[in-house]
Amino acid sequence: MKPGILTLTTDFGIGGPYVAAIKGVLLGLSPGTQIVDICHTISPQNILEGAFVLAGVFDSFPPGTVHLAVVDPGVGSDRRLLAVRLADQWFVLPDNGLITGVLRNQVPQGAWEITNPAIRRQVVSETFHGRDILAPAAAHLLEGGDPAKLGAPVSRFVTLRNFEPTVDDAGYFGEVVFRDTFGNLITNMSATHLAGHRADGWVIEMAGERIEGVSRTYSDRPTGSLIAVVGSSGWLEVAVVNGDASRQLTAGPGATVWLRRKN
Amino acid sequence: MKPGILTLTTDFGIGGPYVAAIKGVLLGLSPGTQIVDICHTISPQNILEGAFVLAGVFDSFPPGTVHLAVVDPGVGSDRRLLAVRLADQWFVLPDNGLITGVLRNQVPQGAWEITNPAIRRQVVSETFHGRDILAPAAAHLLEGGDPAKLGAPVSRFVTLRNFEPTVDDAGYFGEVVFRDTFGNLITNMSATHLAGHRADGWVIEMAGERIEGVSRTYSDRPTGSLIAVVGSSGWLEVAVVNGDASRQLTAGPGATVWLRRKN
Amino acid sequence: MKPGILTLTTDFGIGGPYVAAIKGVLLGLSPGTQIVDICHTISPQNILEGAFVLAGVFDSFPPGTVHLAVVDPGVGSDRRLLAVRLADQWFVLPDNGLITGVLRNQVPQGAWEITNPAIRRQVVSETFHGRDILAPAAAHLLEGGDPAKLGAPVSRFVTLRNFEPTVDDAGYFGEVVFRDTFGNLITNMSATHLAGHRADGWVIEMAGERIEGVSRTYSDRPTGSLIAVVGSSGWLEVAVVNGDASRQLTAGPGATVWLRRKN
Repeated sequence: MKPGILTLTTDFGIGGPYVAAIKGVLLGLSPGTQIVDICHTISPQNILEGAFVLAGVFDSFPPGTVHLAVVDPGVGSDRRLLAVRLADQWFVLPDNGLITGVLRNQVPQGAWEITNPAIRRQVVSETFHGRDILAPAAAHLLEGGDPAKLGAPVSRFVTLRNFEPTVDDAGYFGEVVFRDTFGNLITNMSATHLAGHRADGWVIEMAGERIEGVSRTYSDRPTGSLIAVVGSSGWLEVAVVNGDASRQLTAGPGATVWLRRKN
Repeated sequence: MKPGILTLTTDFGIGGPYVAAIKGVLLGLSPGTQIVDICHTISPQNILEGAFVLAGVFDSFPPGTVHLAVVDPGVGSDRRLLAVRLADQWFVLPDNGLITGVLRNQVPQGAWEITNPAIRRQVVSETFHGRDILAPAAAHLLEGGDPAKLGAPVSRFVTLRNFEPTVDDAGYFGEVVFRDTFGNLITNMSATHLAGHRADGWVIEMAGERIEGVSRTYSDRPTGSLIAVVGSSGWLEVAVVNGDASRQLTAGPGATVWLRRKN
Repeated sequence: MKPGILTLTTDFGIGGPYVAAIKGVLLGLSPGTQIVDICHTISPQNILEGAFVLAGVFDSFPPGTVHLAVVDPGVGSDRRLLAVRLADQWFVLPDNGLITGVLRNQVPQGAWEITNPAIRRQVVSETFHGRDILAPAAAHLLEGGDPAKLGAPVSRFVTLRNFEPTVDDAGYFGEVVFRDTFGNLITNMSATHLAGHRADGWVIEMAGERIEGVSRTYSDRPTGSLIAVVGSSGWLEVAVVNGDASRQLTAGPGATVWLRRKN
């Protein structure tokens, strides 16, 4: 049997030992699992950002991968914990909207609430369900366990309303959802929204700036140019060639972006 | 045979290639070992912080795990290097107090000084014993090697005096030992110190603020509240619900914290 | 068969999910591969820095390791992508000078351009060749594939001219190429340049400061001393004992350093 793959997406940050605690529990219950960190620098408790990161990366992973995600402002409250099967992969996460982006082009193959007291650590911390409940549930799935043993089937999830841009007569308006380490501003508009109109027929506006057309690649235009480009995960990005768009526009996550058809 | 697990705790930071050098040496000597990063952002040369991180996380890992820790201001001096067996796990580290927290509730099962010139890299850098001596020693243990081959048995270690809080008539005073990425301030007082008195019978004071009672979870009180809570590793933390206690109190590691019984 | 080892060196930063996307593709094509992050905080598009990091760490890894490096300002242009065999290891990277440091003391055992459309992801993003072309090429090599299937053999590479210091009558002048997390300033001068003259016969000058002699280790001199020392990867470093040379000298990568023989 191939070793299973577990990914981790959290807002725990780089500094602390919390991520390692999850890994320790996981490796104790599912020895040999390969663990891949997707991102631990989701802005604290920013579920939308976490949903975008998951949506952009999960389909780079092979079938059978288990994605454990913890952006969980409701830890200790009565929000549910879920195991969702989709695209032959697993998503183990709180039911707070984190799954929204993954659901975009995919129909779930099944979902279960995680409630079984036998599949968790003996002592459950009130503040760290990622380690004490989600990690054992993920290990159960990695070991080929029956998902129905986790808890009752679930058919409805919490989803985020601002994940999709708003449609109007002139096109769309949406928002910046992620700033990468190059300062590129990733929006919640995608190649799907651009389809049906030619690339040079769009105007992108944000932070008082106007960008004519969508470029094919970063090297299409001279250094310092403000451009719009469809990034590697399919989202429309605002970037500066060999520069930092976030700094140049003094803009980041939450900033409004207009995508308009030219007349 | 299951693959072995090696964890790494250092003050090397995230940026540089030093951590990877240790991993390369390790994987060359013990192929297939699973490597887990616990924390590389220990404040430079802050042994107390390293000791707390190790103490809080080691028991999430399964038996047989080898924990390699390098916070080593004395590299190149005559401080000893140790392999300590405890709770069926191994700790490979300099003898400078890093082991203090792990020793708190555990009796060592054995300890050896690492001196054998045959178990190290051929050329030993004066400034990087983590790569050149500790990694080969850890690989020796991961491969099931006899610990007595590392060097002579050891029965005494350097320990840190300020790891435990001070007891006085009204309760305890201790200090903040770690600020996590949420801005929570983790203290050197634990559930053990709270035992024997009811949760709402304590007052926590620091930075001119007074907190009545110990909360059960972050979501017990409204957003913005300053609270004290026993965190997921068992330490008493000062936190702001959905906020950043470190910023709000302008306080970090080293700050004094009083834990007092109410009359 | 032992699991293969893949290392990653990029300027993608810590925050984003780009690194994980590469890992997902890799593990789908070469299950069980052990992945080691060398460094993702290369300054954006700083090829020289990437070349130094690779040169300093690759020989800590065992034979057969595949090093994938992406510092790629030319992505989407016509710069070539290469697979280079050297010291029984593989280097998979853009042909932009990243290989320079590795070539320093080593003769390549073979090199191939990566052009085969059958060894890449079905849809290739214009902006993310690391995930869509380099990761599949690396997986091909990890699985023992014939390198000649990647593309045509190559005998010349782009190399960086400022990798080596300049020789003059008094000694050398070079530059700072990396600042580690301790604030140590690593230069492009190495133990090789110091050979043939005694350690206390050198003077190092930078940022208006003068350092007499090369120390054996950080603990040779009192706390706060500005020292020069040969670091663990063989490069000459300027450091402050238990301090931060970068902050004290207000200097970082690019700063000029003189290495002079005393009369």
